[in-house]
Amino acid sequence: MAVLGATGYAGVELIRILLEHPRVQLSVVTSQQFVGKRVSDVYPSLVGKCDLALEEMQVEEIAPRTDIAFAALPHETSMQVVADFYERGKRVIDLSADFRLHDPDIYMRWYSAHKAPHLLRKAIYGLTELHRKEIARARLVANPGCYPTGAVLGLAPLFAKKMVQGNVVVDAKSGVTGAGRTSTVELSFSEVNENFKAYNVGVHRHAPEIEQELGEIVQRPVSVLFAPHLVPMSRGILSTMYVELKSSPDEQKLAKLYRDYYRQDSFIRLLPAGSFPQTKDVRGSNDCAIGFRYDPHVKLLVVITAIDNLVKGAAGQAVQNMNLMCGWPEVEGLKGTALVP
Amino acid sequence: MAVLGATGYAGVELIRILLEHPRVQLSVVTSQQFVGKRVSDVYPSLVGKCDLALEEMQVEEIAPRTDIAFAALPHETSMQVVADFYERGKRVIDLSADFRLHDPDIYMRWYSAHKAPHLLRKAIYGLTELHRKEIARARLVANPGCYPTGAVLGLAPLFAKKMVQGNVVVDAKSGVTGAGRTSTVELSFSEVNENFKAYNVGVHRHAPEIEQELGEIVQRPVSVLFAPHLVPMSRGILSTMYVELKSSPDEQKLAKLYRDYYRQDSFIRLLPAGSFPQTKDVRGSNDCAIGFRYDPHVKLLVVITAIDNLVKGAAGQAVQNMNLMCGWPEVEGLKGTALVP
Amino acid sequence: MAVLGATGYAGVELIRILLEHPRVQLSVVTSQQFVGKRVSDVYPSLVGKCDLALEEMQVEEIAPRTDIAFAALPHETSMQVVADFYERGKRVIDLSADFRLHDPDIYMRWYSAHKAPHLLRKAIYGLTELHRKEIARARLVANPGCYPTGAVLGLAPLFAKKMVQGNVVVDAKSGVTGAGRTSTVELSFSEVNENFKAYNVGVHRHAPEIEQELGEIVQRPVSVLFAPHLVPMSRGILSTMYVELKSSPDEQKLAKLYRDYYRQDSFIRLLPAGSFPQTKDVRGSNDCAIGFRYDPHVKLLVVITAIDNLVKGAAGQAVQNMNLMCGWPEVEGLKGTALVP
Amino acid sequence: MAVLGATGYAGVELIRILLEHPRVQLSVVTSQQFVGKRVSDVYPSLVGKCDLALEEMQVEEIAPRTDIAFAALPHETSMQVVADFYERGKRVIDLSADFRLHDPDIYMRWYSAHKAPHLLRKAIYGLTELHRKEIARARLVANPGCYPTGAVLGLAPLFAKKMVQGNVVVDAKSGVTGAGRTSTVELSFSEVNENFKAYNVGVHRHAPEIEQELGEIVQRPVSVLFAPHLVPMSRGILSTMYVELKSSPDEQKLAKLYRDYYRQDSFIRLLPAGSFPQTKDVRGSNDCAIGFRYDPHVKLLVVITAIDNLVKGAAGQAVQNMNLMCGWPEVEGLKGTALVP
Repeated sequence: MAVLGATGYAGVELIRILLEHPRVQLSVVTSQQFVGKRVSDVYPSLVGKCDLALEEMQVEEIAPRTDIAFAALPHETSMQVVADFYERGKRVIDLSADFRLHDPDIYMRWYSAHKAPHLLRKAIYGLTELHRKEIARARLVANPGCYPTGAVLGLAPLFAKKMVQGNVVVDAKSGVTGAGRTSTVELSFSEVNENFKAYNVGVHRHAPEIEQELGEIVQRPVSVLFAPHLVPMSRGILSTMYVELKSSPDEQKLAKLYRDYYRQDSFIRLLPAGSFPQTKDVRGSNDCAIGFRYDPHVKLLVVITAIDNLVKGAAGQAVQNMNLMCGWPEVEGLKGTALVP
Repeated sequence: MAVLGATGYAGVELIRILLEHPRVQLSVVTSQQFVGKRVSDVYPSLVGKCDLALEEMQVEEIAPRTDIAFAALPHETSMQVVADFYERGKRVIDLSADFRLHDPDIYMRWYSAHKAPHLLRKAIYGLTELHRKEIARARLVANPGCYPTGAVLGLAPLFAKKMVQGNVVVDAKSGVTGAGRTSTVELSFSEVNENFKAYNVGVHRHAPEIEQELGEIVQRPVSVLFAPHLVPMSRGILSTMYVELKSSPDEQKLAKLYRDYYRQDSFIRLLPAGSFPQTKDVRGSNDCAIGFRYDPHVKLLVVITAIDNLVKGAAGQAVQNMNLMCGWPEVEGLKGTALVP
Repeated sequence: MAVLGATGYAGVELIRILLEHPRVQLSVVTSQQFVGKRVSDVYPSLVGKCDLALEEMQVEEIAPRTDIAFAALPHETSMQVVADFYERGKRVIDLSADFRLHDPDIYMRWYSAHKAPHLLRKAIYGLTELHRKEIARARLVANPGCYPTGAVLGLAPLFAKKMVQGNVVVDAKSGVTGAGRTSTVELSFSEVNENFKAYNVGVHRHAPEIEQELGEIVQRPVSVLFAPHLVPMSRGILSTMYVELKSSPDEQKLAKLYRDYYRQDSFIRLLPAGSFPQTKDVRGSNDCAIGFRYDPHVKLLVVITAIDNLVKGAAGQAVQNMNLMCGWPEVEGLKGTALVP
Repeated sequence: MAVLGATGYAGVELIRILLEHPRVQLSVVTSQQFVGKRVSDVYPSLVGKCDLALEEMQVEEIAPRTDIAFAALPHETSMQVVADFYERGKRVIDLSADFRLHDPDIYMRWYSAHKAPHLLRKAIYGLTELHRKEIARARLVANPGCYPTGAVLGLAPLFAKKMVQGNVVVDAKSGVTGAGRTSTVELSFSEVNENFKAYNVGVHRHAPEIEQELGEIVQRPVSVLFAPHLVPMSRGILSTMYVELKSSPDEQKLAKLYRDYYRQDSFIRLLPAGSFPQTKDVRGSNDCAIGFRYDPHVKLLVVITAIDNLVKGAAGQAVQNMNLMCGWPEVEGLKGTALVP
């Protein structure tokens, strides 16, 4: 197994999870910045556990040594690498945004011109709970963004039953690792600590992903107002969603609807109606916890989901997809309990 | 001047601000728990600056020694004390919730039976920017809750112009000092740190306050879905509000509308259309920063406000009201710049 | 297996670790405060993973259902429970301080009169790396305090070689979970956040534990100045130790000395001379990372160790001891990688 | 008054303090990175309070417009600018390290070759409490480093009485703003949060400053082991110091010794013997709080000081020095109470 871009936060989280996976042998780790060092030089937590040398990203050299590659590379860098692996007959789970949007025009609008548009039709959007069968057969999985994972998992059952009318508001709050391993002043401790803010309200690149997935469910365009916020903590996304329903719901029926929709999903944790999750209960685990409450006063349903952005929102879901692609139990390597407190 | 309940967080913040006020001499501080100690024993930051002994809450003893009393006492405890001071001809600024709701039935529904209902009609709701004139003449000011301050200041100009239709969503995020100086497991560091959660969604006691104030502006009942969240930081409230307007707005006209509404308000800081405030920019100051953006895609206006919950959301606004009641410049003692970083 | 006191932080961390242990079936969890609830009601992170009902602490009822009990009870409560289990022929790993000090007079001085002094001679101090053989045969293991674990592991090799002269300074810094799941104002988020302080300097109860263990190594009394500090973070202890040596050391020889001393110890991670560990590199793992540097300028050796106070400093080391007592591989259930970032 | 380098953390803190200073009119602010913007564009907390345009650092243009310049520029950049101002007859308070070390060889060893060595003899080390008279007459004040301020203020009375023998250990813990406004991965939120570490143990550039000042007091070389640590908080330094005394001290006499030494110092807050300060009690204020405890068991005196690294450790002390240089009351503009909680 290969992790391309192993020294970013999604990369090192992949390594942490794969080390606990009973069927996986990690054999290749790459890095742009730290070639020649061991991955455990960059992350001392890995000393004695994964001391692989970081290699340059040379497709012809690496491809023969792995069946499946995890690409944890920056957007726009990833697509060429992924295409190269794909053409060599390898299966790829891409954690970047490059193959998530099916429509190259939409990709162009939010990112740039796509360099491998022919692969967009091949890529399966890797939100496991929604696309399990296609993922199992896929050669290219576009692992979802962290925000879309939390938002779509909370809303999908409602859209599947065509219960939603009007627009949806997704007020999401994320820990700082969602921005990756970066060195901008804006994400320095002194700026983020003891501060709370919104950013990219209505213009965040994860909005079209959410709209695509919800739109596919109902087979019509869906509009979402996506308002992300930055929380002074390292991990976790809480998504608070405000939904107008076509008719006044019965909370017990809603609970049953969610249970039915997710009846085969080990990582979905449904809370009793009226109670809500918190991010610490899923920190370090692959779970998505979902709670909801209908407010008859304003006639809005509030749905709240909690995930760990680096696990279910990135590396954990990637491993979940790998399990499916390999025909292994979906939970393999992902049974760990959240680190609380 | 007297601060009743001086060892809670609103109390000690009142002391901090009053110490910098050129016209005020603080003469009485009370405490239930620490009688006999000096306030600087409980808060060493005050050593050498305010070493007053903490007294028991004896109205007949204290009332003669102060013209105006700040009551920073728990809800339901406050009303009796406030009534006692009021009857002795003193002016009171009450930081509890006891005199904020005009309707004793609504108070009863959210708190308990009111013990001084005759005073509810006398009390002026102390959101300074909205009720400046009445406050100047008031003998009893009900200082607003921290959440209502942030929410109403962001929405008032829109309601004043009768531009809002449908319900309003207030997704608010508060630092932990909003819960006061408490000793519950839920608010211990180990529980709050690295965690984010919603609480009391749709059932928080500050919702009726918001609805009362907005309803008064438009002279009809207003419904608000109020969803508070707890941020792992000490100070600050960011309120993200989603509003449906009767007609598609022009952002420049909206900006002018806000400017006109707040043209005489020193503590309102309006951001350029499309940009949003963050809590650190007001930490320790009495400012309320307001930003908005209209999203034509979903036809919703997003308004975001930032305040320091202990200053504009409590002690600072109380001093602002005191200034009005005393005929002093409204900004006296409140000119401090936010502590950044 | 039973966890007595399962809803404290050491208790829930034991459950997290035991759930990943391939040979353990957890069958009993007790709680004083939450009898009747499931442990997953108190810690939602356990939903679907450990939904055992919390039982009352009834020895006669529980003892028959477990071979080994972990006692994660408060100091002074624990000794009676431990004695009861011991008398019924059960093996106990006690995470309280009650059986750590061999001398009942010293226990009396720092805690209170001991109620089961006859067991003090039976108890083995469970610092695994120092007492592996005795632990394997023990029926009662006194699991070390979190601070002594970090301090003694850093100093033991030097004392074993009789290289130390004069007193030792241990300047330790701990995350807040070290204080347990508590509801004091002092440990509330608003008090701890953005604050740093020392506490119990020279009078902390872990000092006699450190002195006992170091003294046993050199067979003479050892004096330590122990100065603990509280860090605004949840997990981790960094211990910075200042040691005067009898002769000027060669750093490479010191490195070899540490390597030799810990040559069979899987959880000790020795850093190259001159480099130091940080707490995040061991968060959630059972590792103790050790670094040192000799400063010829002041002729002092600085040794720094990092542990996770809830893992190597409590629950992880308890499981490590259980493994020994059961004849299982010492690392079983403890191979997890630190959660970084 | 001019602030050169106004957009770093020391610069913006200078502005915050000077805005509250009744005798100062700030007229010039410079920046390398943000020329042309207003300082309130970079720090929105200043909107409406200080909207000066950021200018380029042009000495000939700026010098005529100010009597005193605060130089809050990077080390090694500062010395040339300071020399230019000095030569034009201006007084300068330099917050960089460039004029703190009297000996150009020592400067060379820790920084680089000095470009204005002739000014080293002119510069007064601006630790106000120790050099008040010289500062009042100075034309160039080298404002102390944040760490030396906390360390020397805690140790000076002991050295002045020649009570210290052997070496001194300074185990210091600093908030992250001490590193300035930077964009390195190491100081990003995701790396610093929930982490604690030591850095530059025995090789930090502030060590020679501490040794110089203590050595001057006793007129002999002094050796200090300086071990700085990084705390996951924004502001504050706690310095824990371990000192061997020539004779066993009486704590009451020690208390008197400190009181006598600091009898005219408004910003020194002495705690009762046996109690220690915490950083939050001085956050945002210019105070230095000092506590000590003698441990007869190990015969070491522990002295702990707390300061706000940006106030007493930088901008506040600079303004305190300015007050002296201008013949104004030393506390002018610096009376603010710490922001607690």
